[in-house]
Amino acid sequence: MLVPADSYHVDIALRWGDMDAYNHVNNVTYLQYLEQARVIAFRDWFGQDRSILDEGILVARSEIEYRAPLSYRDAPVRVSLWCSHIGGGSYDLAYVVHDPEGVGDGAYAVAETTLALYDFATERPRRMSGHEKAALTEHLADPAPMRRRR
Amino acid sequence: MLVPADSYHVDIALRWGDMDAYNHVNNVTYLQYLEQARVIAFRDWFGQDRSILDEGILVARSEIEYRAPLSYRDAPVRVSLWCSHIGGGSYDLAYVVHDPEGVGDGAYAVAETTLALYDFATERPRRMSGHEKAALTEHLADPAPMRRRR
Amino acid sequence: MLVPADSYHVDIALRWGDMDAYNHVNNVTYLQYLEQARVIAFRDWFGQDRSILDEGILVARSEIEYRAPLSYRDAPVRVSLWCSHIGGGSYDLAYVVHDPEGVGDGAYAVAETTLALYDFATERPRRMSGHEKAALTEHLADPAPMRRRR
Amino acid sequence: MLVPADSYHVDIALRWGDMDAYNHVNNVTYLQYLEQARVIAFRDWFGQDRSILDEGILVARSEIEYRAPLSYRDAPVRVSLWCSHIGGGSYDLAYVVHDPEGVGDGAYAVAETTLALYDFATERPRRMSGHEKAALTEHLADPAPMRRRR
Repeated sequence: MLVPADSYHVDIALRWGDMDAYNHVNNVTYLQYLEQARVIAFRDWFGQDRSILDEGILVARSEIEYRAPLSYRDAPVRVSLWCSHIGGGSYDLAYVVHDPEGVGDGAYAVAETTLALYDFATERPRRMSGHEKAALTEHLADPAPMRRRR
Repeated sequence: MLVPADSYHVDIALRWGDMDAYNHVNNVTYLQYLEQARVIAFRDWFGQDRSILDEGILVARSEIEYRAPLSYRDAPVRVSLWCSHIGGGSYDLAYVVHDPEGVGDGAYAVAETTLALYDFATERPRRMSGHEKAALTEHLADPAPMRRRR
Repeated sequence: MLVPADSYHVDIALRWGDMDAYNHVNNVTYLQYLEQARVIAFRDWFGQDRSILDEGILVARSEIEYRAPLSYRDAPVRVSLWCSHIGGGSYDLAYVVHDPEGVGDGAYAVAETTLALYDFATERPRRMSGHEKAALTEHLADPAPMRRRR
Repeated sequence: MLVPADSYHVDIALRWGDMDAYNHVNNVTYLQYLEQARVIAFRDWFGQDRSILDEGILVARSEIEYRAPLSYRDAPVRVSLWCSHIGGGSYDLAYVVHDPEGVGDGAYAVAETTLALYDFATERPRRMSGHEKAALTEHLADPAPMRRRR
């Protein structure tokens, strides 16, 4: 089972320009899909009025396995994401990129990003607020189902 | 010592448009810097006439740690890269993104990508040629100096 | 009236990463919205099986007026497009980028692109097929409502 | 003669990822080359300490003719640019994108952008300063050599 039952789903519309000269969505662009899924999920997880984005986070690490090539099509891809680890000054999100109708034969990509808590105003690391921890705990599930991890 | 003595150096010119709404080079764009460094290095490592890109490789995995924020400036960043692992059907490249004058206080990013050998014509995995193995062995050095690896 | 009554509508989801360091969708990215609207419209105008994209067209000219700044929001923008000129070896498309609920106070952008008929196989200009001309004529309307044209 | 004798030259390194599925630099990306050339030129024209970018300008219009397809190569393209019109609240820049060794058989693109004077602090249009006018006048030359202008 690649995707935890209670993961959060965001559909991302591909753009024709996401493809590179190999006629596949470029490996770089997948990270933009993850970023976009995160932005939409956070609006919902942390609330509209005072998002965790404003409190401040930095992407500290990205890891992604590309499982199957993806070419432009009208149908979106679905990014299923959840929190895979909560630390003191950071947390991890896990992502599976797959077809909207289900993971089926497999995923296009499996990924994990580490987000560090940061205060943009003071330009220093910050502690996790109770509000953040509660929201993340609600979406906490398995580690990202990586295969090629070093 | 972050960068092996005999790593390969490619300077990448930043573009103002690489920055996102946080006034930093977007985390996604760093992977494009790695891709570009790889394209230039491979031209040199594997030869102009019959590049390994034509023989066929797929990016199977990317892992990157962001160490320091980077804003647009006229001076390029330097990407130092080397081969960090040679497998049967794939190999790893390690990268350090830093200032051209040296790594100094640290790097902007440390990364690793796994490249799978692939034959675009038959759409199947392929074996490493002797030519590829010799070229990669010449650039083989330490693993990527990751800190946050899961 | 900025948009002809029978223009074709495509909704484009913004991505957070479309914004530049000014916190606005970058001026360059608007052209990607036009491209994407065109790709989706053509699938419908010219048919799924044998698109005009395969027959071959080249973007020969782009002209765009930016009317109001646009920042990332969850709601898509609507691109209304139509054919504004049919020539012998090329044709023009006109575009208005606006809110899905209507043009209201104004548009984010008004644009026009000239598409040249090209045969990728022979790498030469080609003539317009009857099928293309019929499809374009069906979507033919006013010139793009430019204000700042030189 | 496509390029005025005293135009300003900026070399832009291509990136492999600038290419789209047609194996050409995507039509959208050309505008990023213009933006980048402008950023570098302005640093020089208006001075390092207080650039016109900080005083505030908005891109109000872009117009570009694509003259020849461009594929990734190690050699940069050269963007030659100059001021083609000075108005009360805006000015135009003209650009020719060509090979560094000269325009020769022709250009990859010819373009023009209108930049509107804007005060980001007050969010209102502003008047041109004497400093700006002097700097622009020094780089004033012919209109952009467009062929397909509507």
